[in-house]
Amino acid sequence: MSDKVAVLVAGSWGTALASVLAFNDLEVVAWTRNAKQARELNEEHTNNRYLPDIKLSPRLRATTDMGEAVSGAVAVLIVAPSSAMREVSRQLKTYWTEDMLIIHATKGFETESLKRMSTVISEELGCEEGSVVVLSGPSHAEEVIRKCPTTVVVASSDSKAAAAAQDLFMNAYFRVYTNRDMIGVELAGALKNIIALGAGMSDGLGFGDNAKAALLTRGLAEISRIGVEMGANPLTFAGLAGIGDLVVTATSRHSRNWRAGSLLGQGKGLEEVLASMGMVVEGIRTTKAAHAISEKFGVQMPIADQLYHVLFKDRDPRSAVEALMGRDPKTEMEIMPQEIWEQWHT
Amino acid sequence: MSDKVAVLVAGSWGTALASVLAFNDLEVVAWTRNAKQARELNEEHTNNRYLPDIKLSPRLRATTDMGEAVSGAVAVLIVAPSSAMREVSRQLKTYWTEDMLIIHATKGFETESLKRMSTVISEELGCEEGSVVVLSGPSHAEEVIRKCPTTVVVASSDSKAAAAAQDLFMNAYFRVYTNRDMIGVELAGALKNIIALGAGMSDGLGFGDNAKAALLTRGLAEISRIGVEMGANPLTFAGLAGIGDLVVTATSRHSRNWRAGSLLGQGKGLEEVLASMGMVVEGIRTTKAAHAISEKFGVQMPIADQLYHVLFKDRDPRSAVEALMGRDPKTEMEIMPQEIWEQWHT
Repeated sequence: MSDKVAVLVAGSWGTALASVLAFNDLEVVAWTRNAKQARELNEEHTNNRYLPDIKLSPRLRATTDMGEAVSGAVAVLIVAPSSAMREVSRQLKTYWTEDMLIIHATKGFETESLKRMSTVISEELGCEEGSVVVLSGPSHAEEVIRKCPTTVVVASSDSKAAAAAQDLFMNAYFRVYTNRDMIGVELAGALKNIIALGAGMSDGLGFGDNAKAALLTRGLAEISRIGVEMGANPLTFAGLAGIGDLVVTATSRHSRNWRAGSLLGQGKGLEEVLASMGMVVEGIRTTKAAHAISEKFGVQMPIADQLYHVLFKDRDPRSAVEALMGRDPKTEMEIMPQEIWEQWHT
Repeated sequence: MSDKVAVLVAGSWGTALASVLAFNDLEVVAWTRNAKQARELNEEHTNNRYLPDIKLSPRLRATTDMGEAVSGAVAVLIVAPSSAMREVSRQLKTYWTEDMLIIHATKGFETESLKRMSTVISEELGCEEGSVVVLSGPSHAEEVIRKCPTTVVVASSDSKAAAAAQDLFMNAYFRVYTNRDMIGVELAGALKNIIALGAGMSDGLGFGDNAKAALLTRGLAEISRIGVEMGANPLTFAGLAGIGDLVVTATSRHSRNWRAGSLLGQGKGLEEVLASMGMVVEGIRTTKAAHAISEKFGVQMPIADQLYHVLFKDRDPRSAVEALMGRDPKTEMEIMPQEIWEQWHT
């Protein structure tokens, strides 16, 4: 009998990852609170609310009973929204046993506490943070379900746990890299939404490809800088969870963050943008979080800071860009200057 | 009287950089072999062959006499094609004096010798390689001339030389960062064309955003890996000359490298692609150079290697992608594993 994996919950990304596991001949049971959705998954093999017009594997089952989903599983994959992570983890504690591998694929911070997702999960389960694995990377759910070539990274400070997750997911269209820098992978995934928002704003202002590339690159430099301050490896930000995901998010017109930024650049106010989006824009919440984090750690985040003022302090987007262009001359390499790299490398 | 800068030669990028210097109130004299082009620049203030429909600054003068262009200049900016770099530098030796700052903005290697541009220049001038400055970054010439916000990096192992170049170019729309890692900046600018070619191929195969982001990210990882082997700092590849320029090149339909890759992905052969492009595709030459470099240094470059086989050994693009996806499981962090980063950082 094949190994069983539980997936909490069946949104678009959870369903896409569940499809990869089903393709790999695992027994996959998705948990959802919504009985109608569970029935639809079991009987029609579709999940129309999140993935319209897509036929899913019949190997993918669903249940509204978390105990049934989790019982006997070798691994639990958590893909709850960041705002629901603590509650879902708390509920999981009843059914989870220590031999089950915990993997999560949720981007973002816990609002207020600014905690990373693996911290929230490990606090609720009462396990080591290092035994949790995070999965991240450039991956539109629709493309994963259509089996388009995709690469992701799984990170944990426990390399055995990361390797076990790599083993569960990897196949001919879904290539999985490991990384021991879980903090970097989680921070990159959450913070990159700010930069996507900024890239959209630049496009909305009609500034061109040079400006957008500048925003992506210098944005990456500043989220790396805060990441290093919080314990991450700067090269993780140049990897799949950082620049990889950023490219997908910031150059896609389907990205909510890009779209919200573009509307801001066109001169719309925050209220108006939020009303026209009709759903949560992660980058806006994350900009607030980054502003708090940058003050807490005393690290400069000039792009996030200007976005914060555009979003919450009525700064004109054009003057925000002027302020960024008019800063003092800088070097590119604040994190690891050449003399230090050479010293270390030779 | 304002300082004088000589620009060799007046192609699209040379003219765009000359316009930045003219905007900064410098006296700018461009050298060109073409008398008609010089006359057009001086009388019509246009350069229609390279920059159609664009009016240039009347401060920008041109001459066919290199001695006249260079005499009395505080700096010489060389933007010759890589294939002409040795000859232009040799000619410059007659007029160059040691007090003149040398900056170049040419991407690529010398064919056969595989030497970087700063090596070629310093060999011909008989100066230290470290006193040459390279300018690179995400910058369409047309956008620079239209004064769209743009950022670039100037690199030299001599930080005073880099700071002097930063000072010449920086203004409200053209922001200049310094970097001491000249090798990294030169390698990133040259090698990124390979990845742009690969990204185009992925698009030509119809593979989607996930695959393209994977190629960009893992491509960046492999050009960083060879760069480190050749003496570069890996974080330079995450900067403006690396990921910044790569994003502009690989996501623009105007990029020759992207376009050539896209045609290959659609199943066209190399001859046919070259015929339909009607001009040099840097990425194709660079793929050959990278193949030689990767063998010389014994460093794996899986993406460049597959592209080499598609271009020169008739490998089918689809099976090249399958080969890339089917490699052994890997970690993301070959260059600076977490334990080494932590050891260094704490």
